[in-house]
Amino acid sequence: MSESDLEEMFTLAVSVAKEAGQIIRDAFDKEKEVDTKLSAADLVTESDQAVEKIVNTRIMEKFPTHRFIGEETTSESGEKHELTDDPTWIIDPIDGTTNFVNRIQEVSFSLGIMVNKKTVIGVVYAPIKDEMFTARLGKGAYLNGMKLQASKITDLKQAVIITEGGSSRDAKEVEDKVKNIHALITHTRGIRAYGSAAVNLCHVAAGRGQGYVEYGIHIWDFIAGALIAKEAGAVVLDPTGCDLDPLRRRILCACSPEVAKGLSQILTHLDMGCD
Amino acid sequence: MSESDLEEMFTLAVSVAKEAGQIIRDAFDKEKEVDTKLSAADLVTESDQAVEKIVNTRIMEKFPTHRFIGEETTSESGEKHELTDDPTWIIDPIDGTTNFVNRIQEVSFSLGIMVNKKTVIGVVYAPIKDEMFTARLGKGAYLNGMKLQASKITDLKQAVIITEGGSSRDAKEVEDKVKNIHALITHTRGIRAYGSAAVNLCHVAAGRGQGYVEYGIHIWDFIAGALIAKEAGAVVLDPTGCDLDPLRRRILCACSPEVAKGLSQILTHLDMGCD
Repeated sequence: MSESDLEEMFTLAVSVAKEAGQIIRDAFDKEKEVDTKLSAADLVTESDQAVEKIVNTRIMEKFPTHRFIGEETTSESGEKHELTDDPTWIIDPIDGTTNFVNRIQEVSFSLGIMVNKKTVIGVVYAPIKDEMFTARLGKGAYLNGMKLQASKITDLKQAVIITEGGSSRDAKEVEDKVKNIHALITHTRGIRAYGSAAVNLCHVAAGRGQGYVEYGIHIWDFIAGALIAKEAGAVVLDPTGCDLDPLRRRILCACSPEVAKGLSQILTHLDMGCD
Repeated sequence: MSESDLEEMFTLAVSVAKEAGQIIRDAFDKEKEVDTKLSAADLVTESDQAVEKIVNTRIMEKFPTHRFIGEETTSESGEKHELTDDPTWIIDPIDGTTNFVNRIQEVSFSLGIMVNKKTVIGVVYAPIKDEMFTARLGKGAYLNGMKLQASKITDLKQAVIITEGGSSRDAKEVEDKVKNIHALITHTRGIRAYGSAAVNLCHVAAGRGQGYVEYGIHIWDFIAGALIAKEAGAVVLDPTGCDLDPLRRRILCACSPEVAKGLSQILTHLDMGCD
């Protein structure tokens, strides 16, 4: 893949993020038709579907041979994913749908592009706050054009860690997540929860807190934010400390290797299966 | 107290909030000298003290007979408070000091004024986001001059609830708080945690989520935000469902009486003593 191909893909990625953001912004204050998916807390709206459809169209017009993985398309098909070496656009039309429905401002459009199974471009746009986070592999991470740098903290006791209750209401899964929340409160300066995985990763990239851990999310939730965090100097791993497997539905992000190691040691590692 | 007295107090309250906000904004991105108070997660900085001092001076210049309760003055004296009928200015110079230290944007200056033990004015200014929340008893709540209205949701299952791990690291207290987090995840659409009680209450006032509950906070954390939430149509109570006692160190805020009742029933009510 040539530099100019990547440049063209990046330009389209930012352009569709802006278009998606406009749709999200227009719908934000309106009443929404809400459907549920796997639990009463797992939501989808017409806007999720509308954004996914238009973004898919834009990508296919310009890059008809590229692959596409979208949250809503996938939820409907229920199929397992196989990552290939082909250029693959992975999108979450609205990351933080519960926030969107409940009018909480942390909602985002997330788009990651993988080539040869490596993320080369990440774009997360939070339209209500007009924050456009972008990263290209090896070229740094940016917020509205300003270079990002993760926090320099190395001591877990000084870290604030983002985590989430998530949308599953499976009793065992909730119990394990709560156990992790307990461990995080005990060993850190505190926890935060914003309700959007993509935004959470961008917060760590921007130095707003020192880490983020979540079990039960999907590749479309974190693939773009993970690159943005890494390009801002953060560490992104599987929570066990192994390399991140983008299909294993869990992620640990920390501003430094020391904080990552500390987190990995205090957490109970939930096996979430794979996408 | 005449209407014109209240008008003058409100004008001063907004003016000192802006001055405080400027100090907080100027210090936000700089390295901070951090001291701890009751636990390693209970922080104070020079900026907290500087803001409190200047605000105290401004108030005493203009209203020398009024009383003053400030977080940092109180932490130093360790004395119990007695609320009198005198006009009393109650401030938290930086609500969300951990956020301030860790460069997380939800920090605020909080100022409530009580007369005859009733809150008559509430001002919360979040300077990094430039959000000025104001309320006067019986006159509605505003964000940067725009009228606020809490969410209309009545079903707890559709509600997103804000809560916090807090700064105490007492094992029993953390355990009880985690038990409540478990209950909240189970019975609602999810939890959020932003790290500032004053901001949390303003979020509910602004319809960004449907409720907020916290045990272990203080009068200066919530007195202003509680009026703002109430004036936006939310319900503010003691978590048991009784009237709020501003010195009992706990609060429940919900967008509707139904959500308040639901929350009260699923929570374990921690006795936090009194200020």
